[in-house]
Amino acid sequence: MSAAPAVERIAPCSGRAVELDTGDELVVIDPMGQQVSDLTAFSRDDTNEYLSSGRSIDYASKLWLTRGDLLYSNRSRAMFTILEDTCGRHDFTLTPCSKEMFERLYGEVEGRPGCEGNLAAALAPWGIGRDRIPIAFNIFMNVTVDGETGKVAVLPPLSGPGDFIRLRAEMPLVVAMTACSAGQSNNFSYKPIDFRVERAPSG
Amino acid sequence: MSAAPAVERIAPCSGRAVELDTGDELVVIDPMGQQVSDLTAFSRDDTNEYLSSGRSIDYASKLWLTRGDLLYSNRSRAMFTILEDTCGRHDFTLTPCSKEMFERLYGEVEGRPGCEGNLAAALAPWGIGRDRIPIAFNIFMNVTVDGETGKVAVLPPLSGPGDFIRLRAEMPLVVAMTACSAGQSNNFSYKPIDFRVERAPSG
Repeated sequence: MSAAPAVERIAPCSGRAVELDTGDELVVIDPMGQQVSDLTAFSRDDTNEYLSSGRSIDYASKLWLTRGDLLYSNRSRAMFTILEDTCGRHDFTLTPCSKEMFERLYGEVEGRPGCEGNLAAALAPWGIGRDRIPIAFNIFMNVTVDGETGKVAVLPPLSGPGDFIRLRAEMPLVVAMTACSAGQSNNFSYKPIDFRVERAPSG
Repeated sequence: MSAAPAVERIAPCSGRAVELDTGDELVVIDPMGQQVSDLTAFSRDDTNEYLSSGRSIDYASKLWLTRGDLLYSNRSRAMFTILEDTCGRHDFTLTPCSKEMFERLYGEVEGRPGCEGNLAAALAPWGIGRDRIPIAFNIFMNVTVDGETGKVAVLPPLSGPGDFIRLRAEMPLVVAMTACSAGQSNNFSYKPIDFRVERAPSG
């Protein structure tokens, strides 16, 4: 019997990347509550294939994905299945926070790298730069939409301490994720994010 | 005095690309009503800079953009200003219809190229392939969102014959647009789309 896989911690305002094989499960955990993790993924066989919000929303016919839903690539192939979800509310419409976003929306003179910069830094070993960071699957991010006006609002996450989402990889992937840097997304708490990779039994 | 610029027609289920310089205005017209045009754009100075739905929605804090709103690139620079809009309802959340989407959602055995394929074909002279077609600005596409459940629905466009949107280019662009191939988006009418380019007065 192998030891339980270790929980790893993503420090506040930073990012990490991991490789997954088909069948591996990634558990993303909000250890303290009210924190967001922007997640994106690329096919390891060809990094021109990436996680696509627009495809996933189209195929699910809903903005908010949860247990049982699939996350698709730009090539319409399943990248992940959501196996468990104790929070139930995530965003898939907004780009990761970025240097320019902090300057524009938060009035920072010299914006911080944000999730976009942290995802790109984590993905640099795979040759993936900032221009190629798409709309992420923003785990635990609570974005509301007014169905009459289309107005969107970023509210504090609904996640409490220990809430998690479990994703099964449906192809060989490189996955990057963050502990979010945007105050509005995490109720100005800038906490860490935990994750655990559970490897599929080999052959 | 120069002659009025000609109106050009995009045949049903096809696409076109045009180059715009800063200040040029592109008028996209629904000649018969209830037709959709998926539009995307890339910076001519560096085609790694592209029209970003996620940035545009984030900066506008609303899903549905109209007169006075800006459309942003992935690098957070303004690509277009919407100068006029006689319809008022467009989508910016769904990927263009594609071969795989027709097979998956419409049950076609061999899916048609769709707006994705037609945009890629139109952009081929600029070296832009299908993997790089992002979520488009889906002009006249009427997608509703249930603010309680997040459920999205594609309804017939609200555009009538002659409705149009006028976009001013804010940087040198290559713009591609379609007459949409998806029955659900155009109420199963598969009509053409017209457009007109009004060049900025030269220096």
